[in-house]
Amino acid sequence: MKKLALAIHGGAGTIVQSLMTAELEQEYRNALETALKVGWEILNDGGNALDAVEATVVELENFPLFNSGKGAVFTHDGKNELDASIMDGKQLKAGAVAFVRNVKNPIKLARLVMEKTEHILLAGEGANEFAREMQVEFVADDYFFTDFRYQQLLQARAENQVQLDHSSNSKSQIPNPKSLGTVGAVACDGFGDVAAATSTGGMTNKKFGRIGDTPIIGAGTYADNQTCAVSCTGYGEFFMLGVSAYDVAARMKYKNISLIEATKETIKYLTEIGGEGGLIAVDALGNVAVPFNSEGMYRGFVATNCEMIVKIYGD
Amino acid sequence: MKKLALAIHGGAGTIVQSLMTAELEQEYRNALETALKVGWEILNDGGNALDAVEATVVELENFPLFNSGKGAVFTHDGKNELDASIMDGKQLKAGAVAFVRNVKNPIKLARLVMEKTEHILLAGEGANEFAREMQVEFVADDYFFTDFRYQQLLQARAENQVQLDHSSNSKSQIPNPKSLGTVGAVACDGFGDVAAATSTGGMTNKKFGRIGDTPIIGAGTYADNQTCAVSCTGYGEFFMLGVSAYDVAARMKYKNISLIEATKETIKYLTEIGGEGGLIAVDALGNVAVPFNSEGMYRGFVATNCEMIVKIYGD
Repeated sequence: MKKLALAIHGGAGTIVQSLMTAELEQEYRNALETALKVGWEILNDGGNALDAVEATVVELENFPLFNSGKGAVFTHDGKNELDASIMDGKQLKAGAVAFVRNVKNPIKLARLVMEKTEHILLAGEGANEFAREMQVEFVADDYFFTDFRYQQLLQARAENQVQLDHSSNSKSQIPNPKSLGTVGAVACDGFGDVAAATSTGGMTNKKFGRIGDTPIIGAGTYADNQTCAVSCTGYGEFFMLGVSAYDVAARMKYKNISLIEATKETIKYLTEIGGEGGLIAVDALGNVAVPFNSEGMYRGFVATNCEMIVKIYGD
Repeated sequence: MKKLALAIHGGAGTIVQSLMTAELEQEYRNALETALKVGWEILNDGGNALDAVEATVVELENFPLFNSGKGAVFTHDGKNELDASIMDGKQLKAGAVAFVRNVKNPIKLARLVMEKTEHILLAGEGANEFAREMQVEFVADDYFFTDFRYQQLLQARAENQVQLDHSSNSKSQIPNPKSLGTVGAVACDGFGDVAAATSTGGMTNKKFGRIGDTPIIGAGTYADNQTCAVSCTGYGEFFMLGVSAYDVAARMKYKNISLIEATKETIKYLTEIGGEGGLIAVDALGNVAVPFNSEGMYRGFVATNCEMIVKIYGD
């Protein structure tokens, strides 16, 4: 049996200890630990990486404080639109969904896209129709209602009014940093197979059917047994321009460097092009990397011969 | 002034001379030449690569026989849904739209996403709303009606019935080869800046809001002055799994190989993972490559010291 590894994230950004209560911090830590345990048990029981990342992300989607599944932020119209993607590094197959509504666990739907269709990415009403055909679990609008996300929307709407007022001449592709967050998991199983999964509730107050990096294979998610499995979080647009998830794999393949070196270089390049955020990655040897350039990233990992570690701030 | 280069494609696939009339072939050749001339004039007049690829793709979108703009295929519901993306290699900026309707030239809308929003990819109703705000040119449904596309839909609907019947156990991600087609342009201007643009009408009979590689930065389109500009065409799902457009750039950057070598390797890899199609690429030195592994690809290119060449079949 090869070395097992599992890493997760719950979003990266301006996460500062001074703005956090001890109780809230403990809630986040518990959620990260619970999710890691779910995936780790699957890997330890001889399960595969794909099942492990899916189950881990389901756990993160069900936690109300992360921006995915239950904790999804509100769009401009006060709705919750969810994006997710999953990739199987063994078979080099992938599935993804963009702005689905009322689906409890978008990551399960992404896996069904991979396994039951000839497509990779389904979006909008068509993806919802597919969800109904697949009979996934649906939830009512109020499942996604959390007061602090609604307050975020009201605040973002107010601020956006101002932003729009002076942004008509602006060509900035930088979204509001307060609106970001994603969850993700990457794993290497006992067969040396890797997989990655990412899920998000998008950006608070988003308009115009914006699709970020989360459901984009290569940008937010990538997995290939030849190299590694990667899940990204941060300003989605920069991960799209940098094709960041695949960039880690490409650096390993074409420069013949390690996972640690490749992920460092990818984050360095992300910084150069003005991006902010982080990523989690494992390779097929069970190595783990969780680099980021933001102030913090909710993250955790566990591996054979490496006990469970959960962190929030930079250090 | 540096070496200028412009390359275009009008889709790749099972394009066989025996199935083509001399008149039809001439129509295609004329369309490719006309489009090349439009972009070439811009480059020769000192214009930039971004303007050249946009204007060239507009010309291809307006030609009824390519699957983009006017010639777009029908979805399962008998609608025309259009995808497009554009990337500026000088500024490393990009814009894209997915399944917009009734927009005459989706590539113009993609450029507006790049220049007027903080996002990269807008999809569905939101993208249409953005189009209305931007006051782009709209056309009625019947603008897109071409009898041969409608016949294709009827045929695909009939065939799909059969396919679905025995595909419930199939995990194939291979779409119907008859349903594919895209247009694209890449250019290098006198400043050594590169740009890429791609536009498609998607897949005949597509369901569930499928998004292919065309609007995905990294998969169907990529441009970076450091390396090259690339536009892909073929089975979209494989270009998404191979992250093919960015893969060319990554091979150049990380392996330090030429555009010609990099594009050859990318197509070789595409073949290995079961994909079919081709790509067009230019680098910042004005070199051009138009490799493909399908039977044919509508293609053409012109460069400083290289007269205009237009081809359809393998050779």
